[in-house]
Amino acid sequence: MGVNEKEFVKEVTPREEDFSQWYLDLVLKTEMMDYAPVKGCMAIRPYGYAIWESIQRLLDKRIKATGHKNAYFPIFIPESLLQKEAEHVEGFAPEVALVTHGGSEKLAERLVVRPTSEAIICSMYAKWVQSWRDLPLLINQWCNVVRWEKNTRPFLRTSEFLWQEGHTVHSTEEEAEEEALKMLGVYREFVESELAIPVISGLKTEREKFAGALHTYTIEALMADGKALQAGTSHNLGQHFSRVFDIQFLDKDKQLKYAWQTSWGVSTRLIGAIIMVHGDDRGLKLPPQVAPVQVVVVPIITKKQREEVLQKAQEILKEFGGEIRMELDDREEYSAGWKFNEWEMKGVPLRLEIGPRDLQQGGVFAVRRDTGEKIFISAEELPQRLPALLGDIQANLFRQAQEFREKNTHRVDSYQEFQEVIQEKRGFVLAFWCGDSRCEEEIKNDTKATIRCIPFEQEQSETGPCLFCGSKQGKAVYFARSY
Amino acid sequence: MGVNEKEFVKEVTPREEDFSQWYLDLVLKTEMMDYAPVKGCMAIRPYGYAIWESIQRLLDKRIKATGHKNAYFPIFIPESLLQKEAEHVEGFAPEVALVTHGGSEKLAERLVVRPTSEAIICSMYAKWVQSWRDLPLLINQWCNVVRWEKNTRPFLRTSEFLWQEGHTVHSTEEEAEEEALKMLGVYREFVESELAIPVISGLKTEREKFAGALHTYTIEALMADGKALQAGTSHNLGQHFSRVFDIQFLDKDKQLKYAWQTSWGVSTRLIGAIIMVHGDDRGLKLPPQVAPVQVVVVPIITKKQREEVLQKAQEILKEFGGEIRMELDDREEYSAGWKFNEWEMKGVPLRLEIGPRDLQQGGVFAVRRDTGEKIFISAEELPQRLPALLGDIQANLFRQAQEFREKNTHRVDSYQEFQEVIQEKRGFVLAFWCGDSRCEEEIKNDTKATIRCIPFEQEQSETGPCLFCGSKQGKAVYFARSY
Repeated sequence: MGVNEKEFVKEVTPREEDFSQWYLDLVLKTEMMDYAPVKGCMAIRPYGYAIWESIQRLLDKRIKATGHKNAYFPIFIPESLLQKEAEHVEGFAPEVALVTHGGSEKLAERLVVRPTSEAIICSMYAKWVQSWRDLPLLINQWCNVVRWEKNTRPFLRTSEFLWQEGHTVHSTEEEAEEEALKMLGVYREFVESELAIPVISGLKTEREKFAGALHTYTIEALMADGKALQAGTSHNLGQHFSRVFDIQFLDKDKQLKYAWQTSWGVSTRLIGAIIMVHGDDRGLKLPPQVAPVQVVVVPIITKKQREEVLQKAQEILKEFGGEIRMELDDREEYSAGWKFNEWEMKGVPLRLEIGPRDLQQGGVFAVRRDTGEKIFISAEELPQRLPALLGDIQANLFRQAQEFREKNTHRVDSYQEFQEVIQEKRGFVLAFWCGDSRCEEEIKNDTKATIRCIPFEQEQSETGPCLFCGSKQGKAVYFARSY
Repeated sequence: MGVNEKEFVKEVTPREEDFSQWYLDLVLKTEMMDYAPVKGCMAIRPYGYAIWESIQRLLDKRIKATGHKNAYFPIFIPESLLQKEAEHVEGFAPEVALVTHGGSEKLAERLVVRPTSEAIICSMYAKWVQSWRDLPLLINQWCNVVRWEKNTRPFLRTSEFLWQEGHTVHSTEEEAEEEALKMLGVYREFVESELAIPVISGLKTEREKFAGALHTYTIEALMADGKALQAGTSHNLGQHFSRVFDIQFLDKDKQLKYAWQTSWGVSTRLIGAIIMVHGDDRGLKLPPQVAPVQVVVVPIITKKQREEVLQKAQEILKEFGGEIRMELDDREEYSAGWKFNEWEMKGVPLRLEIGPRDLQQGGVFAVRRDTGEKIFISAEELPQRLPALLGDIQANLFRQAQEFREKNTHRVDSYQEFQEVIQEKRGFVLAFWCGDSRCEEEIKNDTKATIRCIPFEQEQSETGPCLFCGSKQGKAVYFARSY
């Protein structure tokens, strides 16, 4: 390793030293994003945006396969519409951007830049839903939303972000509940199999639910610094919005009824989750399924065999570049070692090295980003080995994240132990909670830990005395500090 | 045809009676869009949005194949950034939406909701471009933009619309010019082969060019009412933006130089073009390449053979539904005739009818939306005939539009004839123009016709006396009234 390479790697702050700075170093240096001249906003650069495009492609397929269609609703919401649902406006009004002037005129009514689209979409659904024949109405939208955040962090919390938001209307309460759970299941399967991030599914507490929802389901992931991240939510909205927006339908029994609704979303914060779950001190480790470059080919060029090596590299690109997202790094101004480090930092799952000696032996060296393992692969084996290795890496990243989460999920016996664990080890803490919001709030004030979810998996019979009050019995829930 | 069907068709205003109302009837009744409770904004419903998704998929492929990568920049532009380029701000300031409050606070600087993104993107490019090695920088963005329009019309002109905007940086003037022309060529090929709309390519006059551009290239299409529509533009920005945003690079010769730039875009107005070029009094006629439903299967159900017919219909869906966007209309509450009319109105290119008699004869009837032709296809022929018929329809729509344009392109000998043609026949008028903006403006004031473009195709030698002033010589240019 030359001097250059060492310096190159040194530029990223080690995770142990300052996890937050490590994250910021990485997103900037890998050119995933850059700060924009608007407070709390970022430019998503091509390397970051390509991950979002993969997320869109892979998730959109699932959203459509479950019967939903995409549409697009206006970015502006008249202030009076946002104010219709009491909890909703209370939750979102403090963080909206307001348009007061259009063209050269002051507007008669101020317009809210959508922080989420329930209000504008429900105003349209009230027109579109008339009869039971119009139901279920299953619509999704990919768009930008704006929430005026005080403390921002690239991808995790920005004043503008990209997301998808599904909005559905149903004729019965049961069907809405089924839909909310189905879409949470879609998110879970998607995040686990495509992003290689294991998640815990469950119900949010009243305190943590979406402003306006009857109840909110969530998938929660554990980051490498022991903090939790809400990776996706699905809300059963009950009739909260249909009643104030007057979404009624004539049912088969000729009765006019208020409809039942759901909404659900995931956002560009998933990119932050990928970074914080898989990355290490050398840089990103991208799951092959969403990596902008799945395989990078780095020719090891000597003066003598320059042409032969480059030709072989190009042949490989030509043979596999159609099925695999592959890039050839034939820049002449950088050494091979420098390139290795750069592509490791960029998290490319697999690197192929081709040098004169490899040519002689009729193959290439493959280096895995996840394990660092170096494997000689003969030319004949490449067509089978390349996809197999990418599959292995994807599975291994998931396994590693799962092991990390298991190691960092604690059961505690007392509130004192709880406080120590949250303070020193972090991670998920599974503890009994009586269901009282006051206990929940006191715990948060003391420890900054919140209830991430009431998990689905638990045995209903398993109860114990509340972690905080000790008096009332309760179920086991997941606590953590979170992003 | 039953009473119902007649009434159904009657609901759409005939084109001859009122073209504008015909258009509005169609976009509403086919559920492409609906008016939203925000002035000048619309909700794009699934049937309209699916066309946009096809446009995105087919155009994005071409944008990537020419070396561009997607990214995302903030929707907000600090007012001071928009003001940097003098012509740019003059062109856009009168029609921007302004954000004055974020959260509960009044902003120190007002934010413009992007009407186009040159200003915000150039402010980032100034950081990203340092050396000749960073060039060319080839980035595209799919997003929403806002222009506060006084007179709006669904898809054609709305206060918020969806588009893609490419923004590129180059080291030489020649390269920027080549890029601007290349992307216009991509648009032309895309619009002609995927949307089946013939276009005229050329240069915009100084008066009609993009605010801030050195010059603007355009593709212009002719709608069925004889008005032109600007379907896409590509701008050579010269150094207008690089000089005010300080986008400089160290060239190979160690000199610091201002970069050369382009930008180019097409928007959801292309959906309006598809409707107005191909549609007829029965409804939409969608080109198969972008039709949300390419083939609809309508079973002709009799009580006796209900199961057999439905089963056959489902078999066809299963066999071809993977490659062809196909839908089975098995609704029981509507008659077959009613369905025929509805799908014709929705512009589905091909309808397959399956009834008991067709089953007996071992085939189906295919009905073309473009010609009304009814063709019996045996089961064995279906795999070849279906894609071939869709290809035929695509080609025929293009041919029809081309014939219409030829028939409606006029050469005139005098200004009086020009005025008569513009008033009575409309269409494109090819006439000599001396190049003086004053003549151009007087013609517009008299006739509402503008110069759509100075075409590429013309012989440079072909000149004649100016249509308006008659004194100076000039080249032949295309005039038309336009959307």
